[in-house]
Amino acid sequence: MKTTRLEAFSDAVIAIILTIMVLDLKAPHECSPNALLKLLPNFFCYILSFVIIAIYWVNHHHLIHLAQKVDAPVLWANVHLLFWMTLIPWTTAYLGESCAIPLAVALYGIVALACSASFHLLRAAIARHHRADADLVKLHRSIRRKNLMVIVVYAISIPLAWVSVPLALALIALPALLYFLPDRRIEQHHNGQS
Amino acid sequence: MKTTRLEAFSDAVIAIILTIMVLDLKAPHECSPNALLKLLPNFFCYILSFVIIAIYWVNHHHLIHLAQKVDAPVLWANVHLLFWMTLIPWTTAYLGESCAIPLAVALYGIVALACSASFHLLRAAIARHHRADADLVKLHRSIRRKNLMVIVVYAISIPLAWVSVPLALALIALPALLYFLPDRRIEQHHNGQS
Amino acid sequence: MKTTRLEAFSDAVIAIILTIMVLDLKAPHECSPNALLKLLPNFFCYILSFVIIAIYWVNHHHLIHLAQKVDAPVLWANVHLLFWMTLIPWTTAYLGESCAIPLAVALYGIVALACSASFHLLRAAIARHHRADADLVKLHRSIRRKNLMVIVVYAISIPLAWVSVPLALALIALPALLYFLPDRRIEQHHNGQS
Amino acid sequence: MKTTRLEAFSDAVIAIILTIMVLDLKAPHECSPNALLKLLPNFFCYILSFVIIAIYWVNHHHLIHLAQKVDAPVLWANVHLLFWMTLIPWTTAYLGESCAIPLAVALYGIVALACSASFHLLRAAIARHHRADADLVKLHRSIRRKNLMVIVVYAISIPLAWVSVPLALALIALPALLYFLPDRRIEQHHNGQS
Repeated sequence: MKTTRLEAFSDAVIAIILTIMVLDLKAPHECSPNALLKLLPNFFCYILSFVIIAIYWVNHHHLIHLAQKVDAPVLWANVHLLFWMTLIPWTTAYLGESCAIPLAVALYGIVALACSASFHLLRAAIARHHRADADLVKLHRSIRRKNLMVIVVYAISIPLAWVSVPLALALIALPALLYFLPDRRIEQHHNGQS
Repeated sequence: MKTTRLEAFSDAVIAIILTIMVLDLKAPHECSPNALLKLLPNFFCYILSFVIIAIYWVNHHHLIHLAQKVDAPVLWANVHLLFWMTLIPWTTAYLGESCAIPLAVALYGIVALACSASFHLLRAAIARHHRADADLVKLHRSIRRKNLMVIVVYAISIPLAWVSVPLALALIALPALLYFLPDRRIEQHHNGQS
Repeated sequence: MKTTRLEAFSDAVIAIILTIMVLDLKAPHECSPNALLKLLPNFFCYILSFVIIAIYWVNHHHLIHLAQKVDAPVLWANVHLLFWMTLIPWTTAYLGESCAIPLAVALYGIVALACSASFHLLRAAIARHHRADADLVKLHRSIRRKNLMVIVVYAISIPLAWVSVPLALALIALPALLYFLPDRRIEQHHNGQS
Repeated sequence: MKTTRLEAFSDAVIAIILTIMVLDLKAPHECSPNALLKLLPNFFCYILSFVIIAIYWVNHHHLIHLAQKVDAPVLWANVHLLFWMTLIPWTTAYLGESCAIPLAVALYGIVALACSASFHLLRAAIARHHRADADLVKLHRSIRRKNLMVIVVYAISIPLAWVSVPLALALIALPALLYFLPDRRIEQHHNGQS
């Protein structure tokens, strides 16, 4: 399988995940402004998940671009990442629906943790082919460092949900800021290539 | 990231937005013709949103075609535009559902305004690379003029919703007519290139 | 715009239309076999619509392949066809839901008629560029003949729904058989080219 | 039609099938942990179906790659396979919803059987073009053997549902393990080509 095919399929799945989330932002059946106000938490969850998925899309693209070939470990690590990402619309709907109870926040954190851990596995599966190239080894190290930090942040946010819901949510939103800009080193790597 | 990738992903998201709107046109559970008649406002909202999204698709395609490269500002301006566009199915469902109250019309106008403002930002992010090319500068100026007119029209429609719902809806539908045909200058530019 | 772009976007929309129909085949909440039997009409409607959309996909692909360029009339004729096709999931859900009353059958027929008429307009918009090529003129004439027959069949099925629901449904299913195999002439044309 | 087009369309449909399944994993409206526990069977069905669809995607890709051209039999065999695959989200939702009664398990098995039988037909339609190539004939034989084993396993699982629900489910999950790794011979074939 070529990397372009893997990328096209992953893109399609990520585009659908990104877009079907809005189906859970149900239009209220009453015409009162109050019914709209009740949707505010759902709307904030929607924004958070939209940003997280968009960041995964950008970073997934940069990561797959490093891969020279798609073997079985890369293929299944990618399917594994997509699996956890498809659960984001569900945890988003549950968080919006369920009055921000600790359980909902923790579940959101668990799926976020699983996504970042899957991203780590996918990166590791791709890195196996790059051991000979010193530049790529450095690049992988830089991606891995950022990825591990995110994993730690999500892991802390899960038990924290039972201590303070707003603090746990803030922690979950933190990596989005960290990942917002694609890695300068990856950009340089791509510019050097093209 | 290449412009073709950005375009393919945006196309996928726009295609999904365009198509999932029909899921909110729920089939009535009763068999009476009256149940169908009640769907008429939903159906008109569906047509309006379909046309608006199709117009964005065409103009987005022409705009991205001008970009020579995708840097971080272009990338995130594009994600920002897609974010507001994904809200169109929601405002469409709310407008159809909620008896055309001013609030629903205003919300529809706000999202339409946010989409056209995001389009303006995306155009500006792309224009930064074109300052040296006199032809492209002219082209950007022509796109910007039309875009700003649309922004003004949408901005007026929002408070107008509390004065007259039909007038506000007519104003929201107006830019669709303006944008219906792709810009002659852009077409000429593309024909000159190909 | 290149024909490949128009085709890729149309393909995405058609793929989504084809697949979201299953969301209206709701799983019954009761565990009794009777609840399943009640879904049988929905299931038959699903099969009919799936076949019709698949046929449009194949024929749309062959038609777009004939186009040498995408100008504004071709572009908007294509958007117009997609608009009517997106209504197929809705008429399918309504037909399955609403006890096969004449109104539901007629609505299904109306949308089918609108799709085939839009296909005719799209073909005509593409044909304008082919007046010089005798082979293509013949090919267009053969596509048009079949298309017009289908339009007539659907037009008859609509009033017939109030006379006999099964007869009207049989008429609506008829063109599927007619279109099942792609036109031999088009296939020959493509094989000659490639 | 080129194989790349058939593949792109099939990929889009499979990506949508894979992703819309999560829409049936509805978020519970109550905030109690019990409401979540009730979703556990739905969640297990979701994982099973996700893995099955991902395996079809990988194997479909490898199979289509063998095809040199897409004629009408290959085209319609592919549409036929996609039809049965679109039913997987429905049988998944029904299995999760309906308390694992034998009927739901059997329906899940029937759709799984229909998918693997359609895969067999698609492979046979493609194999017709390969009779002259001894290597490809061997490859087809190896794919067919595995495919027939899966068909037999699914066929047994259907009546078994009325004997033991867990045993039938275990049988349905078995082929996933068998297919998990893409065929070594196919991989060798592709590596030899590229």
